[in-house]
Amino acid sequence: MRHTISVLVENKFGVLTRVAGLFSGRGYNIDTLNVAPTVDPGISRMTIVTRGDEDTLEQIIKQLNKLINVIEVIDFRDGEYVDRELVLVKVAVNSKTRSEVMQITDIFRAKIVDVQPKSLTIEITGGEGKVGKFIELMKPFGVLDLTRTGKVALPRSTD
Amino acid sequence: MRHTISVLVENKFGVLTRVAGLFSGRGYNIDTLNVAPTVDPGISRMTIVTRGDEDTLEQIIKQLNKLINVIEVIDFRDGEYVDRELVLVKVAVNSKTRSEVMQITDIFRAKIVDVQPKSLTIEITGGEGKVGKFIELMKPFGVLDLTRTGKVALPRSTD
Repeated sequence: MRHTISVLVENKFGVLTRVAGLFSGRGYNIDTLNVAPTVDPGISRMTIVTRGDEDTLEQIIKQLNKLINVIEVIDFRDGEYVDRELVLVKVAVNSKTRSEVMQITDIFRAKIVDVQPKSLTIEITGGEGKVGKFIELMKPFGVLDLTRTGKVALPRSTD
Repeated sequence: MRHTISVLVENKFGVLTRVAGLFSGRGYNIDTLNVAPTVDPGISRMTIVTRGDEDTLEQIIKQLNKLINVIEVIDFRDGEYVDRELVLVKVAVNSKTRSEVMQITDIFRAKIVDVQPKSLTIEITGGEGKVGKFIELMKPFGVLDLTRTGKVALPRSTD
């Protein structure tokens, strides 16, 4: 089962290594991870997407909560949340295929961010399904390069 | 000085811990980091934004290249590249401020992804400058929550 875990941490030295080490130390694979400062530059938020059995994950979350510099752990498996990721994809084009790639980009409300004679670099954001489908559609043209941020998430709490 | 480093790695167990450990072990702070699979699910790309002195960074890059499971290291300080990040920001609104927040969102071509009685959750993508400015403009309304992916980058190579 897939899980999205958000960890609020003090922006101290080595926190990332300790958090990542907790997962790898228990043989738990991380699909995607990102970490960046919040509005308070002293506090960062990590978002981790992982899959594996429930019991091990529960243990990891308990351990996370005990780690020094960890402020809060949210396991998004239960709650409702908004999630998005960003992907930059460089697609091979020629004079015949360029307009077709541009049409698909348009349908997905993606943006062309760089144009070269034989390639287009496209920015697409969305949930996993949308982004994954776009990449599948680009494969026949030739995906030359691709980088994705991994998911970020915020609770959709009523306030 | 700020650096953006892209590391292509085999998607093996513990790679993230080893790479992050190389930075923290030398007292080098990571501003943002993200890691996610490429088109080949066996290979992931990490993007690391860091700041510090050149000599230490050069040593880190040499060490990275020697690490098992590291395929390629690109230091974007020299080359031209396209970079983007995605931010989800939850802003406090009331019946008086909602339209103003929506106008600014529109000007920045950002998207409202969730609406609650007392808040809007907004997705914005762009370079650091644009994203940073948007967040500054939202602060007076009240930033309730914020999560950012950190930068991803692709070389703007002519092909």
